[in-house]
Amino acid sequence: MDTGESVKKGSFTLPGEAGYEALTLELAERWGADAIRDSDGTVLSDEIVAAGFNIYSTICLVRIDNAWARANPDKLQQNFLMSYPVIAEGDAASIDLLSGYFREQFRVNVGDDPKAWWQVFDRTTGEEVPADLWELDAERGVVTVRDTQRWHKYTVNFLAYRIWEAISMYNHITNGWGDREHLMPIDPIYPETQAFILNYLEKWLQDHPRTGIVRFTSMFYNFAWFWGDSPELRYVYSDWGAYDNTVSPYALREFSKARGYSLTSEDFVNGGLYCSSHNVPSQRYRDWMDFMNAFVVAFGRKCIDLVHAAGKEAYMFYDDHWVGTEPYGERFKDFTFDGLIKCVFNAFEARLCAGAQGVKTRELRLHPYLFPTGLKGEPTFKEGGDPTLDCRRFWVNIRRSLLRAPVDRIGLGGYLHLVQDFPDFVDYVEQLGQEFKTLRGIRRGGRPYTAPFKVAVLTAWGKLRSWICNGHMIHGLELNELIESLAGLPVDVEFVSFDDVLEKGIPDDVKVLVNCGRAHSAWSGGRHWQDGEIVSRVTEWVAQGGGLIGIAEPSACELGGQYFQLAHLLGVDRETGRTLSKDKPLYKKASAHFITQDVTGEIDFGKDVDGIFVTGSATHVLADRDGSPRVSAHNFGTGRGVYLSGYKFAPQNTRLLHRALYWAASAESDFGPWTCSNIHTECAHYPGSNKLVVINNSEKKQETLVLNSNGNPIEVSLDPLGIQIIDL
Amino acid sequence: MDTGESVKKGSFTLPGEAGYEALTLELAERWGADAIRDSDGTVLSDEIVAAGFNIYSTICLVRIDNAWARANPDKLQQNFLMSYPVIAEGDAASIDLLSGYFREQFRVNVGDDPKAWWQVFDRTTGEEVPADLWELDAERGVVTVRDTQRWHKYTVNFLAYRIWEAISMYNHITNGWGDREHLMPIDPIYPETQAFILNYLEKWLQDHPRTGIVRFTSMFYNFAWFWGDSPELRYVYSDWGAYDNTVSPYALREFSKARGYSLTSEDFVNGGLYCSSHNVPSQRYRDWMDFMNAFVVAFGRKCIDLVHAAGKEAYMFYDDHWVGTEPYGERFKDFTFDGLIKCVFNAFEARLCAGAQGVKTRELRLHPYLFPTGLKGEPTFKEGGDPTLDCRRFWVNIRRSLLRAPVDRIGLGGYLHLVQDFPDFVDYVEQLGQEFKTLRGIRRGGRPYTAPFKVAVLTAWGKLRSWICNGHMIHGLELNELIESLAGLPVDVEFVSFDDVLEKGIPDDVKVLVNCGRAHSAWSGGRHWQDGEIVSRVTEWVAQGGGLIGIAEPSACELGGQYFQLAHLLGVDRETGRTLSKDKPLYKKASAHFITQDVTGEIDFGKDVDGIFVTGSATHVLADRDGSPRVSAHNFGTGRGVYLSGYKFAPQNTRLLHRALYWAASAESDFGPWTCSNIHTECAHYPGSNKLVVINNSEKKQETLVLNSNGNPIEVSLDPLGIQIIDL
Repeated sequence: MDTGESVKKGSFTLPGEAGYEALTLELAERWGADAIRDSDGTVLSDEIVAAGFNIYSTICLVRIDNAWARANPDKLQQNFLMSYPVIAEGDAASIDLLSGYFREQFRVNVGDDPKAWWQVFDRTTGEEVPADLWELDAERGVVTVRDTQRWHKYTVNFLAYRIWEAISMYNHITNGWGDREHLMPIDPIYPETQAFILNYLEKWLQDHPRTGIVRFTSMFYNFAWFWGDSPELRYVYSDWGAYDNTVSPYALREFSKARGYSLTSEDFVNGGLYCSSHNVPSQRYRDWMDFMNAFVVAFGRKCIDLVHAAGKEAYMFYDDHWVGTEPYGERFKDFTFDGLIKCVFNAFEARLCAGAQGVKTRELRLHPYLFPTGLKGEPTFKEGGDPTLDCRRFWVNIRRSLLRAPVDRIGLGGYLHLVQDFPDFVDYVEQLGQEFKTLRGIRRGGRPYTAPFKVAVLTAWGKLRSWICNGHMIHGLELNELIESLAGLPVDVEFVSFDDVLEKGIPDDVKVLVNCGRAHSAWSGGRHWQDGEIVSRVTEWVAQGGGLIGIAEPSACELGGQYFQLAHLLGVDRETGRTLSKDKPLYKKASAHFITQDVTGEIDFGKDVDGIFVTGSATHVLADRDGSPRVSAHNFGTGRGVYLSGYKFAPQNTRLLHRALYWAASAESDFGPWTCSNIHTECAHYPGSNKLVVINNSEKKQETLVLNSNGNPIEVSLDPLGIQIIDL
Repeated sequence: MDTGESVKKGSFTLPGEAGYEALTLELAERWGADAIRDSDGTVLSDEIVAAGFNIYSTICLVRIDNAWARANPDKLQQNFLMSYPVIAEGDAASIDLLSGYFREQFRVNVGDDPKAWWQVFDRTTGEEVPADLWELDAERGVVTVRDTQRWHKYTVNFLAYRIWEAISMYNHITNGWGDREHLMPIDPIYPETQAFILNYLEKWLQDHPRTGIVRFTSMFYNFAWFWGDSPELRYVYSDWGAYDNTVSPYALREFSKARGYSLTSEDFVNGGLYCSSHNVPSQRYRDWMDFMNAFVVAFGRKCIDLVHAAGKEAYMFYDDHWVGTEPYGERFKDFTFDGLIKCVFNAFEARLCAGAQGVKTRELRLHPYLFPTGLKGEPTFKEGGDPTLDCRRFWVNIRRSLLRAPVDRIGLGGYLHLVQDFPDFVDYVEQLGQEFKTLRGIRRGGRPYTAPFKVAVLTAWGKLRSWICNGHMIHGLELNELIESLAGLPVDVEFVSFDDVLEKGIPDDVKVLVNCGRAHSAWSGGRHWQDGEIVSRVTEWVAQGGGLIGIAEPSACELGGQYFQLAHLLGVDRETGRTLSKDKPLYKKASAHFITQDVTGEIDFGKDVDGIFVTGSATHVLADRDGSPRVSAHNFGTGRGVYLSGYKFAPQNTRLLHRALYWAASAESDFGPWTCSNIHTECAHYPGSNKLVVINNSEKKQETLVLNSNGNPIEVSLDPLGIQIIDL
């Protein structure tokens, strides 16, 4: 750190641990903590609680009292499962419902009438089997289907209670908690559960007089995470944004009453695809999300009111049981949460937290978590792990975004005692904390220089899934890679849905629209591109000067002879086998172009979409491989279209994207000021304080030039992963 | 040539050329010709005709008399074209119908009521525009659409006469025929045209007393070949098997009367996809094909009756105007053709000719054609060309198939005088002719050793498109690459359709079923896989001992959570983005397997389908890349499934396929006899004559071992591209 304010204490949340009081207090001092928290599996001792720090106490309302859960087995949370397919070899098929699933996680709900809630399907034809042709043996958890068609596949959509709450199950198994009791998630949809929870919370608040902040982990429904019984397939289905875990006959009945129509098991099971966030959501599913969001906010508000009445603050952990809370939804502000905490590895996650409205404090929980192993089972705080290197790499990812969008606090979680064997980790966190506070201070002095136009990312989800695809970074998912680049670029970004475009058009301040993803995904848009109104709205907007960037399979769907429905704007389309009998126009590669000006060597997008062809000679191909364009530029009316055949977060691609945004916006002449010459470095200029922050995203020393607003260069040298803060 | 009978003369068709009489007769002698033909652009002089050879005369009935064509412009052949899309920028759109098309090929048919036959579509929504909202300006060939939706794309399906017959247009342009008259194709659907053609033919037969064989080039309707006006897009649409060129209001009316329902322009245009053979045909299109096939055979028979009545033989060229003849259809025998001639580059094309029923003589027209340039414009008989090398390579491709399936004759076409500058070509053709006659002689002695089971290839086309995909080799098209391998393997192969499976099941003698192609193609099957009856039939058959080989995207379609509808048989499925939230079972690679026993180094399938995952631990992965299986084996019931992620014709892959067929058939113990140890060599054992033919497919010398029926090895040395014929 070369300059900037030195703020020793504050804005840092430390995980304390009973039995390690001295360590807790020592590290609180070194890391400048102003708050101490407990974690799942740790408690704080009186000595820690009394040490004068603000105390965060975590609470997960749906697993607070296992005795109550045991006594109310019909109030446990449920979900629809689809049994593994069974192929009928005769005129009947016997289906063991939980076969293939982790039987410690699920128990078949035989109490609510299966004939009313379950469905059996012939998956070979896709047709439902009439309810009178199947019977449940409740004892054995087996459904027998009669009059089957030989060699057809049959499945049962059935309701299962979750008898082990997924996050504590994961923590239990990861940390080897042995015979510690399995916590069960209770469902707050029932008035009885609500009464119990509110009572419990009220008492808990009384019992935690020193707690200043109640950290909800999170509200009520965990993201979907169905486990399997095979070591070869531990996780059958996991989706960070899906509402699979929110169903119950009670809620489904309430939905029918409220919305005037009923949902079926298949609305959630979708032939085994479940409610995956990657797929284009049906209107019925969106209705359900809205219904459950209303419930979660309404009941959540009652809980938060108790917290506030007790004179404490309420923070929400933006993970785990966050389903139904929707921080980017309209109702989120109605919770009246005071703070939001997001665990982050990447810049886009930091932006996710920074961009949420309706809270006054935003906190990042950094990684690595103080656990022996990481999320994928890799060693962290144990033999073979290098938590300091992990932490440096995560931090350098995240730091880019903090130049653009501020958060208020950082913190760690887990078992503090694990850091004892890693003194360099302790040193690094101290340094990182300083860096965070310095950047936050500068950022609070005003917005940095930002492009004179806004970018909108168009997906089926729109604003609701701003700055996120589906949980942590999915490497290779083009949109996830893209938003990681965008998170650190000097452009304002918003996320719009197809419904937004239909209802409100493309916002006036938006100059570049991005559509990025594989065909039929929620990210590309799938069936929405069959809506001529969408296509013509975007066409008009580009014709009148808008810029479109299409990545991978933008606007792809099978309608007529086209595949990319916006091929006329992008100037390219894709051969998927449907048009093999049609020749493709020849093209010549452009010798140079604004967009690819900083590219050296071969562009690496990870995995490219192949079979791309130009629609005519008006398309400028800037990069190609095996006759398939990889980067192209095209004019339409007074607007522009850019196509990229894939995307991977990498310095060269981030720069290429940066330039593509300016070209698409017809704003090339604005490009340059406050941009680094060296693509491994990035910078932000804060006109308010007239400071320039330059960061090195690489693990090598870097030299870079930054052009100021007058075009004069500023030379900067940076240590590996280093930062320079320059007063201009 | 090391042994075998020497047959100097016979079975060779030479293209003669007036003005080069001495050359013609000299080469007829050297190449052992017994027949001399003319070609498009050449004539035979009296001297040649009188020289004692059988005379083949070519005739193309639809371009015989341009004066008649000019006098009957409403009897020219027609097709539906889709205009290039026009985007409406206001409330009307003006569409220049022929814009983008080669105006020397097409003339808009303004004579038949456009409102009755044409259709205008909003391609942005896919909806048809009511006929009262558009008008044709016949003079300008422009359609104006009223009340358009702004920024929507509009196209017109319209009828166009073809005013330049495609093959003579190609020959004219390729050979620079300058201002030679453009021949126009007349349509035999009209009684007047039929009368004219029959009259003309009768007279022509009288005028060609020395002609022994009338070679029809071919019957009436050429494969679809729509040209563009841009040098960047010369061929807009070409499809060797498509019936686009067979339509006319007259025929469409006849169809309605015969079939009781009417077809529309969109049945042929398909949003601009036209009738591509690569796409799954609709039942309506199949009905049309059947209707036109009945007409072509019925009227063709009248022509052939005249030929026979004149004491001559009738041969058909299995190319160009072959559409509607369907040599693999039920009616082909009704033509009473005497011979069938196929121009060939590859083994699969030779099998296509050899397998056609209903003729007594089958002839291959070899390449290169005696033209200055080849089909793709590359030099052949001119500076920079190496026609001898081309010829050797084509021959070695074709030769493999001749070991399995015999043909009767070979020949050449084009301008004979071009060979004068290429004496090594003259020498090579002499040698090739000898080789052909030797092999034919051996093959006539009886069938070679063949696998004790049959293989069926399942496509949407079935038998009708046996041994062909869509014209000459399409490199990279998995099924085309596959049938090229199959064409030389010692297995009997048949081609079955989904309808065949539904009507008749899988034939009793078939032990291996192959499904090979990309999703939604006619080759993989597309929507047919949504038919539960197909899936369950194949499932039952495999459960009871059948073998399934799936290649690329076998049985792929979106139905439920599966993508490969036969994933339960193959043991693999594909991630296309729909199941990203579902984890995939881990797998271990098998250390060795019968199928991959002869593989050395990395398998090269050209382009692989990626994102493949195993369905469980019962799937044995034999080869993979980046976590995606490339070759796998799986048991189901008493049958077996094999998956290959792609296919390219290459020696190692041919061997891998050979072994996969035996493994799928549970016939590993039968594998070995009459198989070469060296994958660059192949052999055939003829039990009837007890001869062993061993061929070297490579351009290097090769040593190989052949195991006889007792397992004893026979050592064979082969020259580059060489052959050995061994008496056992």
